[in-house]
Amino acid sequence: MGVHSSSMRKVSSIIQDMPYQRLDAPTMSMKENISSRWRELHGSNYWENLLEPLDPSLRREIVKYGEFAQAAYDSFDFDTNSKYCGSNYYRKDGLFDKLHLTRHGYKVTKYIYAMSDIIMPRWLETSLADSAWSKESNWMGYVAVSTDDESERLGRRDIVVAWRGTIAPAEWVQNVKVQLTPLGEGNVKVEQGFLSVYTTKGKSSKYNKKSASQQVMKELKNLVSSFKEKGEEVSITITGHSLGGALALLNAHEAAITFTNDVPVSAITFAGPRVGNFAFRDKLDKIGVKVLRVVNKPDIVPKVPGFGLMDAMIHNKLGKLGRSIAQKLHWTYAHVGAELEVDISKSPFVKQEFNLGGFHSLEIYLHLVDGYHSSKSELRKDAKRDIALINKSTGMLIDEMKIPENWRQLSNKGLVYNKYGRWVEPTRVEDDLPSPPSESSDDDESNDSSTEGASQQNQMN
Amino acid sequence: MGVHSSSMRKVSSIIQDMPYQRLDAPTMSMKENISSRWRELHGSNYWENLLEPLDPSLRREIVKYGEFAQAAYDSFDFDTNSKYCGSNYYRKDGLFDKLHLTRHGYKVTKYIYAMSDIIMPRWLETSLADSAWSKESNWMGYVAVSTDDESERLGRRDIVVAWRGTIAPAEWVQNVKVQLTPLGEGNVKVEQGFLSVYTTKGKSSKYNKKSASQQVMKELKNLVSSFKEKGEEVSITITGHSLGGALALLNAHEAAITFTNDVPVSAITFAGPRVGNFAFRDKLDKIGVKVLRVVNKPDIVPKVPGFGLMDAMIHNKLGKLGRSIAQKLHWTYAHVGAELEVDISKSPFVKQEFNLGGFHSLEIYLHLVDGYHSSKSELRKDAKRDIALINKSTGMLIDEMKIPENWRQLSNKGLVYNKYGRWVEPTRVEDDLPSPPSESSDDDESNDSSTEGASQQNQMN
Repeated sequence: MGVHSSSMRKVSSIIQDMPYQRLDAPTMSMKENISSRWRELHGSNYWENLLEPLDPSLRREIVKYGEFAQAAYDSFDFDTNSKYCGSNYYRKDGLFDKLHLTRHGYKVTKYIYAMSDIIMPRWLETSLADSAWSKESNWMGYVAVSTDDESERLGRRDIVVAWRGTIAPAEWVQNVKVQLTPLGEGNVKVEQGFLSVYTTKGKSSKYNKKSASQQVMKELKNLVSSFKEKGEEVSITITGHSLGGALALLNAHEAAITFTNDVPVSAITFAGPRVGNFAFRDKLDKIGVKVLRVVNKPDIVPKVPGFGLMDAMIHNKLGKLGRSIAQKLHWTYAHVGAELEVDISKSPFVKQEFNLGGFHSLEIYLHLVDGYHSSKSELRKDAKRDIALINKSTGMLIDEMKIPENWRQLSNKGLVYNKYGRWVEPTRVEDDLPSPPSESSDDDESNDSSTEGASQQNQMN
Repeated sequence: MGVHSSSMRKVSSIIQDMPYQRLDAPTMSMKENISSRWRELHGSNYWENLLEPLDPSLRREIVKYGEFAQAAYDSFDFDTNSKYCGSNYYRKDGLFDKLHLTRHGYKVTKYIYAMSDIIMPRWLETSLADSAWSKESNWMGYVAVSTDDESERLGRRDIVVAWRGTIAPAEWVQNVKVQLTPLGEGNVKVEQGFLSVYTTKGKSSKYNKKSASQQVMKELKNLVSSFKEKGEEVSITITGHSLGGALALLNAHEAAITFTNDVPVSAITFAGPRVGNFAFRDKLDKIGVKVLRVVNKPDIVPKVPGFGLMDAMIHNKLGKLGRSIAQKLHWTYAHVGAELEVDISKSPFVKQEFNLGGFHSLEIYLHLVDGYHSSKSELRKDAKRDIALINKSTGMLIDEMKIPENWRQLSNKGLVYNKYGRWVEPTRVEDDLPSPPSESSDDDESNDSSTEGASQQNQMN
């Protein structure tokens, strides 16, 4: 396998064209103070006039939240041989340090666990080990808060919730169940699988005596009240990729109902599927949730539920019943909020090939947002984000850049050499182990039942 | 994918049966002093009465030399995206520390590089990078010497040469050229591809102004004369796996001619192919080289050259000409020395499946030697070597042990996070870079030409 000098020339010209991709160029612009504009950047005006062309400060904020969502993948133990499979590698106070994200100026305050009483394809990663930390629950995300310094720059105390998604988009999409279920009062309905992950609790798992919904809402209430007591302005920004984007909307719905107008709630999602019906969309709007959906043009996940059927209808392959179902689905599931559509075909760094996994990859989304100027323009020349990240878990970066494919991996698949001279799975130190959410919180059952999101909780066992 | 409780019981019973495979059991027996027996263990009497049953002290020595050969794989940069592809990751004074081999009590004194003027399948790993450290040469092995303490235990100063082999046994075997070429005087002939790797030098590579043969022999002469001057007894033990086993025999041949009866020379090879004709075998014997070949029963590499043809002949698929060639090959290439045949089908830890790569894997060889008692007995119960090593670069360890397949890997495929926030190939520190063998040694050209091995050197350019 040789490398042609013609393609080498191409690379030099790309790099010449994009000087910020030199190996010694910084990956971020100077941070500017956005305290006077934060409400607008947080979506108070539905991001009007900020998306076309994309406001540089907003672009950086979107990338920041996307990196928080990416952190939920990079720290998650997918190895079914590991007895900690389905948990987070790191303890929460070390997460951002391990993932080189301390520069964003946030601190993790809480880990969230989830389980589901509905069979959902490819969301639950379960250890094969007898001594598995949990067979039912998965680490599903975290809550973080901006530091004092960063809050000054941001103009308010920003609370972030980042939800983990699934890997393996193609299989996932084909298997998402298409079944709406009521959420709260009125006509509001959402996809039952997503809601199940968000609201299931069960006695069988000590990590889910409380549902993900209960865990995250309790933390948000504590944080909001403690900062409000100090007279601070507070915002909540909820993010996630893929399934994580769906959970972000359910979480934003519950948070906006809980905090009414006290705290602005935004959701910035990447590659999120449709979550609910028109009534859900209208409800989110009515309660003030601002949603910004980032979508890569050829990614199929944002087209579900309903993708396969719609596709068949377009190609005229359905009978009368099929057409009727497809039309119903199309009108049943509605996308919400504002959309920022990026387009993988514009990047000179990405292989132009058909690759569902690549189209859906969050790192590729972030590369495209970082390079986005407007829907009509090419990738901007001064994009700084490290293009090596494109290959973190894909092989889509052009070969000429000489970055290995799917390079994100642990040394020796996580095995360590112990003092007896054997290669073993490490015993995680006490503080790294997933610890069950405290059970001293039964007193807030009344709070839980006052929120609409929690009223759909399914009891498992 | 679930795990049946029946197979889980099986594992517990294996572990109960083999208590030294508990995770907190030592991986080695106490070292005993072998100073009174070293000549016998080194093969002075052709290992007679030491192989059946296998002498425990000899077993440990074989495993030690095998681990030295394994080190040549574990430290070799196979990544064609790396500009250091084909070199060693580590500097020579850190090699054994990085690979947890300091317990053997040896120190590396020299790295050896090789090139070839004959197209040999799958032996040369070449970087695709423009700035590659070398396009022609590969790191091919090293010389190490026992420390003072260890020499006391061993009864002499032991000099080891370990030669790297190839990965990808199946393709390699099918492509080995079948062509004998003269070596030195008389009727002695060896496979020309192996000899080419051992003896090629060329002006185009600064690492091979001298051939591998010249590099290793110069180091051996320096070491032997320096220890002999101090009045020490010295042995040379040459080891290697696969292609490395072939190089070990060529090297042993040259060393025995060079040092005549002053220094006993042994070769302990693993999975080595046939190297030369009957005259080569007789010559090795005549000059006093002691060869112990370790062979795994179903491994095909020790059956080449000639394997495909022999197989076809056995199945009666050859015409008259083919039969004649096959018979000629069979009688042309001869195995040398004593053989220790291990058998993968005896290990309860190894999957019983057809897997040419697994049959040929050096780590599996070492597992089988460690468990070997006699040709008639099962794997010994008190085998201590870590069974996780079976899966270092195979998937042959039974799943129940819950060790990931092919677990040997670098963190993030060797990429590191630089101070600008980019993931880059690390710049190796000065001392880690392969440094060309010193060129101040033109004065020993006369020595080179006095050795028979060197008389076949091919000049490349």
